[in-house]
Formats: sequence, C-alpha cells, structure tokens
Amino acid sequence: MSGNLRIDLDRLMRRIEVLAEIGALDGGGVCRLALSDADRDGRDLVRGWMEELGLDVTIDGIGNIVGVRAGTEDGPPVMTGSHIDTVATGGIYDGNLGVLAGLEVVECLNEAGITTRRPIAVGVFTNEEGARFQPDMMGSAVHQGSLSLADAIAETDRDGVTCGDELNRIGYAGEAPVGNTPVHAFVEIHIEQGPVLEEAGITIGAVTGVQGISWTEYTISGVSNHAGTTPMRLRHDAGYVAGAISCEARQLAQDMGGDQVATVGVTELTPNLINVVAKLARVTVDLRNTDDDRLKQAEARMEAFVAETAAAEGVEISSRSLARFEPVQFDAAMIGRVEAAAKEQGHSIRRMASGAGHDAQMFAPNCPTAMIFVPSVGGISHNVEEFTAPEDLRAGSDVLLQVMVELAE
Amino acid sequence: MSGNLRIDLDRLMRRIEVLAEIGALDGGGVCRLALSDADRDGRDLVRGWMEELGLDVTIDGIGNIVGVRAGTEDGPPVMTGSHIDTVATGGIYDGNLGVLAGLEVVECLNEAGITTRRPIAVGVFTNEEGARFQPDMMGSAVHQGSLSLADAIAETDRDGVTCGDELNRIGYAGEAPVGNTPVHAFVEIHIEQGPVLEEAGITIGAVTGVQGISWTEYTISGVSNHAGTTPMRLRHDAGYVAGAISCEARQLAQDMGGDQVATVGVTELTPNLINVVAKLARVTVDLRNTDDDRLKQAEARMEAFVAETAAAEGVEISSRSLARFEPVQFDAAMIGRVEAAAKEQGHSIRRMASGAGHDAQMFAPNCPTAMIFVPSVGGISHNVEEFTAPEDLRAGSDVLLQVMVELAE
Repeated sequence: MSGNLRIDLDRLMRRIEVLAEIGALDGGGVCRLALSDADRDGRDLVRGWMEELGLDVTIDGIGNIVGVRAGTEDGPPVMTGSHIDTVATGGIYDGNLGVLAGLEVVECLNEAGITTRRPIAVGVFTNEEGARFQPDMMGSAVHQGSLSLADAIAETDRDGVTCGDELNRIGYAGEAPVGNTPVHAFVEIHIEQGPVLEEAGITIGAVTGVQGISWTEYTISGVSNHAGTTPMRLRHDAGYVAGAISCEARQLAQDMGGDQVATVGVTELTPNLINVVAKLARVTVDLRNTDDDRLKQAEARMEAFVAETAAAEGVEISSRSLARFEPVQFDAAMIGRVEAAAKEQGHSIRRMASGAGHDAQMFAPNCPTAMIFVPSVGGISHNVEEFTAPEDLRAGSDVLLQVMVELAE
Repeated sequence: MSGNLRIDLDRLMRRIEVLAEIGALDGGGVCRLALSDADRDGRDLVRGWMEELGLDVTIDGIGNIVGVRAGTEDGPPVMTGSHIDTVATGGIYDGNLGVLAGLEVVECLNEAGITTRRPIAVGVFTNEEGARFQPDMMGSAVHQGSLSLADAIAETDRDGVTCGDELNRIGYAGEAPVGNTPVHAFVEIHIEQGPVLEEAGITIGAVTGVQGISWTEYTISGVSNHAGTTPMRLRHDAGYVAGAISCEARQLAQDMGGDQVATVGVTELTPNLINVVAKLARVTVDLRNTDDDRLKQAEARMEAFVAETAAAEGVEISSRSLARFEPVQFDAAMIGRVEAAAKEQGHSIRRMASGAGHDAQMFAPNCPTAMIFVPSVGGISHNVEEFTAPEDLRAGSDVLLQVMVELAE
C-alpha cells in the first residue's frame, strides 16, 4: 500500500512559500528567531494547518507543538517533525521542510482514507537553532528528557529575556507533559546543509548518525610590540599563534582523513593593527567526527599542539570548552528502511553522517530513529540563498511518507 | 670644549614631565593626536620654552615649529628635533625626548655662553605618528620636500576633517617656507622602541639607517559553509588562508634571517562564527629589511605563497600596497661622530638599524643625518608603559649635545 502513495509537491511547495512569508527577508530568506513575534506567527500558521488536517494538537511546557493523527490502536506514535525557528539570515527549507513534509504525510493519508495501526505525530520543536537561546535543539531535548524544562525556561537571550517569559508572551507555554514522552519511532527529513549529495549527484541521503562535536575557545596572551623594532627571536606574538592553530586544524583534518573535519571560524586579534605584534588573540576550534575515539584523538592532538606552541612562543594560552557532544548513531534497521524505500522509489542514495545537529538526535537514545537528507545546492544553508530543488523535496518527502506508513503498520 | 659640556638631567626631566601633563592618560601615558587641542596645547608650551631660551621661532605651512639659535656665521643650521604628537595610547618619551633634548642642548650652550659658528635649530615636526592623518612623518617630509604642502593639507582624518582645516583651527598654519629648507646636518635622539639595547645592556645605539618597510593588505574571498557538513576537500576557507599567511610570514623571517622581520598584525574573519567556514578574511603583512634587495626578495616570496595558496584553496585574493619605503642609509661620517662621542663619554654603544620610521629619515637624502637611540625598557613603546631610565636619557642627550656642538663648529 504505502509504496504507491506519493506526496503532492504543489501543496508542499505552497506551504513552504506561505510559511516563508513570515519573517521574510529581502533576497528570499527568512528571520524567525525562536520565540520572536515572527516565530509566534509561524507557529500560529502551522498549528492552524494541523487543526485543518484534523490532528489533535497539544503544546508542551517548552512550546513544542505536536499534532497527532489517531491510529486504529492507541500507543506511542510514529513521529516526524523538525523546527520552524531560523537563524537571523536563514533559508526557507532548514527545519521547515521537516515540519511541512510531515503535514504532507498526514494530508496524503487523509486523502487516501488510510488509518494506520499506530498513531502518526508531527512535531514542531522549539529553538532548534540555538541562535537566540542556548542550547540548540532545546525543544526536542526537553521533549525527550535530556534537558530539564526548568533549566530550559531559565535560559536568557542577549538582552537578558528568559525563554520562559517569551513562551508566555507569545502564548506557547503549554500544559502537555515533557521528558518521558514515548515515541514508537522517529524519522526526520532535512536538507543536507552540505555539498556532498549535490556533488555526487545523489538524491537521498540515509543518515547514519550525527557527528560528535567539540568546540574549544583559545585565548592567547602574548606581548604587544612594535612590528619594526622587535627582532623575531624576542617576540611573543599572539597573532602568529592564532594563525598556527588555524593551520594545525587543517593539517590535523588532512592527516586523520575519514570524516574528520576541523575549522577555525573565529580569529580576533588585539590591537589588530598592521604594525603592532598582537598581544591578544581569540580563536575557536570546531572538531567533528562520527567516531568518539577519533574525536578524542583530534582533541588531544590539538591540545598538545597548543601547549607546545605556547611554550615555544612564550605566550599564555587558556582554553574553554564551548560544547562537547558525543556522536549519535542511528538505528541500523531504521537506516535500512530509509535506504530500501528510496531504492524502491528509484532514487539514488548514499549513507552519510550528519555534520550538523538535528532534533532527531534527541530521540535516538530513546527510540529507533533515522533521518532523510535531500541535496542543498552548493551546500549553502543558514543563508538566504539556501535552495533545494523541488524534485528533491518531492523525492525525500515520498521516502518519508513510505517509511512512516511502514512504521505505523 | 664640547667634550666637557653636559646636559642638566633634572631640567630635561622636568620638561618631559610638564609636557606629559598635556593629554595625560591614566597609567602615565599621553594622548596627543596630531592637530588636536592637546597637540595645540603641547605646541604652545614648547614654543613658549623656545622663546624663553631666546630662539628665533618660525612656523611653516604644515605647522612645523623651528627655533633657531644664531651662530657667529649665517648659513644652514645644524638641526635636531622630533615630534610631540603621539598615538592614542602613547608614551611620554617617543618624539618628545628628541624635541626636549634639543632644547636642553640650547640651554646648555646659553648657560655656557657659547656661540657656535653655525646656527643651531630645534624642530617640532607635525604628525610624525600618522595616527590621525596619513602619511606618517608628514611634517618632516613637507619640510624636506618629499611631500608637497598641498597634498599634506588635503589629507583627512577618519571624520573627514582636513589637515589644513585643523592647522588653521589650532593656529599653526604658518608662513615659513617649506620644501627646500637647507640644513647643514641633522641629528635626532629617540628612544629605541625595541628591546635590543636593553637586552644587550648597551646604552647608546648609533643608528645606521632605517629599515625599508613594505605593508600589504590581503583580502581573501572564499565560500561561507557549515563547519560540520562541509568536507575538507570541498572547502574554500578564507580563515585558513589567513592563518597560512600568518605562518608563512613567520617562516619567511626565520628562513631569511638577518634583520628581516615579518608581522601579520591584522586578521579579521567574516562572519567570524565558530561553526561557519569564513567567507572573507582580511590580513595585513608588514615586512621590513635594511637591504632593499632582500626586502624585495621577501615581498616576492610572500606574493608567490599567496598566489599558490589561493589556487590550492580555490579562493580569490586581492592585494593592496599600504606603504612601501625603501631603506634609508645614514651618513657614514655622521654615524662615526655619534659613535666617537659616545665612546669619549664612556658609554657602551652598538650600531643598529631602526625598525621604525623617524623624522630624521626625511633629512637623510638632503644632508648628513644620524640618530642616537637610547634603550626602551622591555622594548615597549606606543604604550602608556613606555619607559627609558633617566640615566639613559642623560647619556643620549649628552651625546647629542657633543655631536651638535662639533657639527656647529
């Protein structure tokens, strides 16, 4: 049965476009920071669509919106979903696709008059981006109990406004319980946000898990000196050490190979003048690997390099961990289901790890979980130019539909 | 005769301290940006001292203040001088020493009742620092004709205020001619602004010339991407290239050795976020050498490295020359005079090049020129902690006195 069901691309595209009007930016993107007025308006829109589709909609304490389509039996639902909050210069697909493809699954089943055995649920999870309140994936973390509701609502944005106050203000501090919400299985469709699928000409990514993430900030204290009058041997150059860390990050990734990535995205020098040896530098190192042992190896190598370089240059370096997530491994049978459905539908497919965090990873410890990736043109995301071809949206959503129906039978 | 004259350290220190009160900063430094109110007040003070000492004071079109003590014969003076403008967080010795030691030379001669054969002149040159208006060494360049008065007064500061308007506002747009002002010989005392003399335990530096300076700004355009989802081989990372240029600058200086120095003092990434591969980077490279051929060699090596790295990383790099000064060689006989006077007075001495630019270099093409360096504690300058021991100020000023009197006989 499920193998013949197909989503309605026009309907999906229309919902994507209508939602994209809320918080729209010049150039085609969107700004819908978590718990802002635009987020509230987007939530109201999606909640309305859920109700129109006949879903039983609840809001929980962290503002997650869950719409449930009843099955012939009670019990934990087969769940999909994602987020509609965005970064300040977000695209219109990141997150939104996962929510709206979920609604499309529901509408297809409604149209086909199918009642699955298990209930089907679509979730809109609060503050996945972490652009306004930290941590990211806040709503799904609270939903699945890895973050307490009390801690989450106490988080503040840059202006000192709490998450809890903003939930109340926009009317999304709900009553539904959180923390031990049973789910039969979870599957999320998301744009890749990287260039791998497009470059390889592959339509569907069967996500095997999420890379472990290690973020470290280094603050380097050297001695400010005149760039002309200070012999090289007498320098304690914080700027040079910052550059050396950037080069070491690249070298480390090259030497380790595999899926190890390493990025120095932040470099700030003080006083940042052409003719002054920098006295202070701040750099961040972002290391990711799907294998926690290899991630630890990368961390140890960087730590050793930083210590050696500090000693050689005569600078002080302090480090601070900004984030550390272990890799997440998705369920083998679930990955197989995604792969099989994509093959059955005639799509090219590749197994791949996600380099970015997603709501699905919060479900992985508690229920069989998988993700479906569709190509991002140019790998561009968190950018108003983010784009995925409609045919790829269709392909991924069809795979989602099939997998969910199979899981719900 | 001249070998027995000695300056009055208390009088010199008092003038240094009184001048340091104008634009004083917490922590002991001074902010007296060129043509600011503080600069005007400092000028008024020094001009008053010049008049008290009986000098014939003139102001020229770029605001240089020159006080002349008549000799028994007319003709071009033996000149000394420096500047009293500072950087925003300047020390109290940089420049000021050269002006106030010049006044001390005059006062010693007055006290001793000596009239030299040639006139003696003390100059206060406008905007040596280049902190507010570019180029630096503006006043001495106009005085000696390497920069036209028209170009200089048309320069604007960050707020768009012209140098000419500020000269008028503070009352220092004078009538004295510029551009072909004959000088018999020029000698300037200045703090080293580097750590070489202090580290070697030497009191007097006999400056052999000024290093050639090459400043280049590189703007690197890469592609902004997600630090997790973008495989290393698909990156065009402007931040990595910035780091690589910083490391190459260090390597180049190490490989070339000698007095080659290389500094990346500015690094700015865009968007400068921990989890985003930088799309844009701006770095500056400061290269200096006393030998122009070797400086050109350093420039060529950096240029080749930048081109190769851009090609390998797939980024676009544009470069812009921000400054290029050929090395300046001081007169051999003049260097010998400084050295001989210091030896005669029992000071330890070292010949050394200046890594920083100074007013003296503008005189070097037109008349026999030399400089006297005294130690900077810790090599610190352009910093409120700038310090030179009073005994070293005395030693250097005594050498200046002897050299000037010899030149004026």
